Amino acid sequence: LGAFVAGARWDEVPAAVQHEAKRSILNGLGAALGAAIYPAVEDAVATVQPFAGPPQASVIGRPERFDILTASFVNAIGANAYDFDDTHLHTVIHPTAPVAPALLALAEHRGLAGADLLHAFVLGVEIECRLGNAVTPGHYARGWHITTTCGVFGAAAGSARLMGLDAGTTAHALGIAASQSGGIVENLAAGAKSIAMGNAARNGLLAALAAERGCTAAARAIEGPLGWARAAGDEVDVEELVGGLGARWELAKNTYKPYPCGIVLHPVIDACLALRQRHGIAAADVAGVIVNGHPLLLARADRPVANERDARISIHHSVAAVFLFAAAGLREYSDAAVRDAAAIALRGRVRAEADAAIPVGAARVSVRTVSGEIFSAEVAHARGSLELPMTDADIETKTRELAKVGCPSCDVARVIDAVWTLDRMTDVGELMALLRSARARRSD
Amino acid sequence: LGAFVAGARWDEVPAAVQHEAKRSILNGLGAALGAAIYPAVEDAVATVQPFAGPPQASVIGRPERFDILTASFVNAIGANAYDFDDTHLHTVIHPTAPVAPALLALAEHRGLAGADLLHAFVLGVEIECRLGNAVTPGHYARGWHITTTCGVFGAAAGSARLMGLDAGTTAHALGIAASQSGGIVENLAAGAKSIAMGNAARNGLLAALAAERGCTAAARAIEGPLGWARAAGDEVDVEELVGGLGARWELAKNTYKPYPCGIVLHPVIDACLALRQRHGIAAADVAGVIVNGHPLLLARADRPVANERDARISIHHSVAAVFLFAAAGLREYSDAAVRDAAAIALRGRVRAEADAAIPVGAARVSVRTVSGEIFSAEVAHARGSLELPMTDADIETKTRELAKVGCPSCDVARVIDAVWTLDRMTDVGELMALLRSARARRSD
Repeated sequence: LGAFVAGARWDEVPAAVQHEAKRSILNGLGAALGAAIYPAVEDAVATVQPFAGPPQASVIGRPERFDILTASFVNAIGANAYDFDDTHLHTVIHPTAPVAPALLALAEHRGLAGADLLHAFVLGVEIECRLGNAVTPGHYARGWHITTTCGVFGAAAGSARLMGLDAGTTAHALGIAASQSGGIVENLAAGAKSIAMGNAARNGLLAALAAERGCTAAARAIEGPLGWARAAGDEVDVEELVGGLGARWELAKNTYKPYPCGIVLHPVIDACLALRQRHGIAAADVAGVIVNGHPLLLARADRPVANERDARISIHHSVAAVFLFAAAGLREYSDAAVRDAAAIALRGRVRAEADAAIPVGAARVSVRTVSGEIFSAEVAHARGSLELPMTDADIETKTRELAKVGCPSCDVARVIDAVWTLDRMTDVGELMALLRSARARRSD
Repeated sequence: LGAFVAGARWDEVPAAVQHEAKRSILNGLGAALGAAIYPAVEDAVATVQPFAGPPQASVIGRPERFDILTASFVNAIGANAYDFDDTHLHTVIHPTAPVAPALLALAEHRGLAGADLLHAFVLGVEIECRLGNAVTPGHYARGWHITTTCGVFGAAAGSARLMGLDAGTTAHALGIAASQSGGIVENLAAGAKSIAMGNAARNGLLAALAAERGCTAAARAIEGPLGWARAAGDEVDVEELVGGLGARWELAKNTYKPYPCGIVLHPVIDACLALRQRHGIAAADVAGVIVNGHPLLLARADRPVANERDARISIHHSVAAVFLFAAAGLREYSDAAVRDAAAIALRGRVRAEADAAIPVGAARVSVRTVSGEIFSAEVAHARGSLELPMTDADIETKTRELAKVGCPSCDVARVIDAVWTLDRMTDVGELMALLRSARARRSD
């Protein structure tokens, strides 16, 4: 892996994958802009600000500039805070949040070019998702939050590439990352998840910085008898890890969310939207809802709802939101929406039932109306899936909407232009300057 | 655990445990002083210095002052760098390195009292070692470096206590720590181990700081179905975790090393020293050496030696050092000693053989001399074990020797006095000032 990352060439990355890197980064920046004043981000900034180093890198959508480790930490939290980031469906890794923030901070600090950033991002995501593939499905099922446990390797690989480390030093960076991998599924609906997300980016960057200074790792830190994979419960599938390196690209399989909630909920939302549209069903008409999905849907999203973190991984709230508010956007997953009396009542009329015959990624929703009619809608592929992908224009619109929420002073049109032309930008600092809030431009 | 940590009272800690806290901290400070200019520490400082925040806390034995998170990181690396720190034998956790640095930094920054520091330390070690007990022996055997994986909980618990967090907030700090636990055995002989050691202290402190700001964790982040313990492969032994809280104290079982190497090697060294002393055997007399020990001894310490990190967990080098140099101190585990041609030759004449009848902690060494005689020595309990503990005077001597190596400008007599009277010190900053190198006192 070290040799692959150190030896790869940008002009050997297929044009479609190069473009996918821009789509992923735009989607990630949009998510971070949207979350810039979200409590998880405000709290993270307040927690680390007293200990942050020199202003080397920007916090997306905010006035602060921190040292690159601290900026990576906060921006990874921001990119993931709304659960609005991207998804590598096979592993359910959210690839961008742990990787891009480390690379953006490093590139801003060292004045590196956009093409180098994009290439490092492609390679970081490749390592992150291949490690995920190599330990899927046992790793997540056992309780490891795969985005953070594998994300730290992606951030390390991408950072090593961006620093220009050689193959051996890059391998050490990956091995150092193995001693920093962590994060558990039990904490997914709590603030602790954000801390682990921030650590994945920060510690991946730290791994590369330490390797750059000569720090070493065991030769088989990942796959050795007492290495990361086995400690975390899995044998590594070596073919998944190294087969076809440079020939197939994991980033090509990235997807983007139209709704700020767990991706397993997206077909449920699309089915509810279809029922509204086809049959004019609104909340007052609903006597009961049955959601049928793969057992995985229930394992992830059939849970009590106490706050917006719960709501974003709740079948019941997602259904209630669509029938009540005709939408499933940031507002519909806010604490206000969660506490809405009608939403609470409607959540209570939703039942989830597992049906192993329904594929992962699909769902069937059946509504019994107060007048006794039953309507059903089945969605095979949700909007935003690989089969029905978000277009570039969709991602632009999503970015604009998010910027309005979290950083209204941001010139989002220029951000969008800058990302689409990132491969020609000579200094990533130009992009990062566009992402800072007006407060920053006034006070700097 | 949160209620125990938040509600505990210093005057209910037995006097012997209170004193053990001072012994542990003195031993830990000595280890850090000794390693102050050791490459792993120099490299760690060089790696993080460009990103460190305001000078809030001292780096032990050095001129730098960093923000408390960065100081915790570096001091934990220092305390453990020489493998000269303490050992909780049942778990093989080295309790002080991940816990004390976080608490010392926090106490220095906030101007807290020595008794509060000692109490927080006792409680942090209690949580750290109980978690270790609750997942021993499977956790380490699977590849988790238990000092770092459990150390982060100890640092979180101690920091929460020192901040005065309530029971619920302390529980959140422990749950946040669960999402930051990491570190693998495969990396033990590499620099990556030091990075994980630094992270354990830093991230435990970060967990408490985040909890203080309102960050939450799942109610069952440790023992839940997708929580830390099961993700890492173990069911928690709840009785080990919470049985007899406040009645039995894990710190009472702490031990200190007379030799800067893996603790499993200590009976081997004592046996070799006895053979030298009783029979006057030196390197030139040795035709061959057989070391018999529990299979665990071989699993940990029967390995090829390429550098000093290897040497400090090598049966072969430890035996060679005693017969060549009549000692097993810092000098005998230096890279120069490892590369010594006579040491290389003598290591080649040492063989390790497992004997399950020999208890862990014991060893038998048999030497065949060039004249054909065979001498054996058996050690049931090594110097520094619970049965043959280091005295206060031994720890003082060790601290003086270490300070001479790493921080000769340090007034070690005052450091020793300050630790023995720490429970009467009103501001831990006084102790930390004594631990800074003369360079610091000149330039500050």
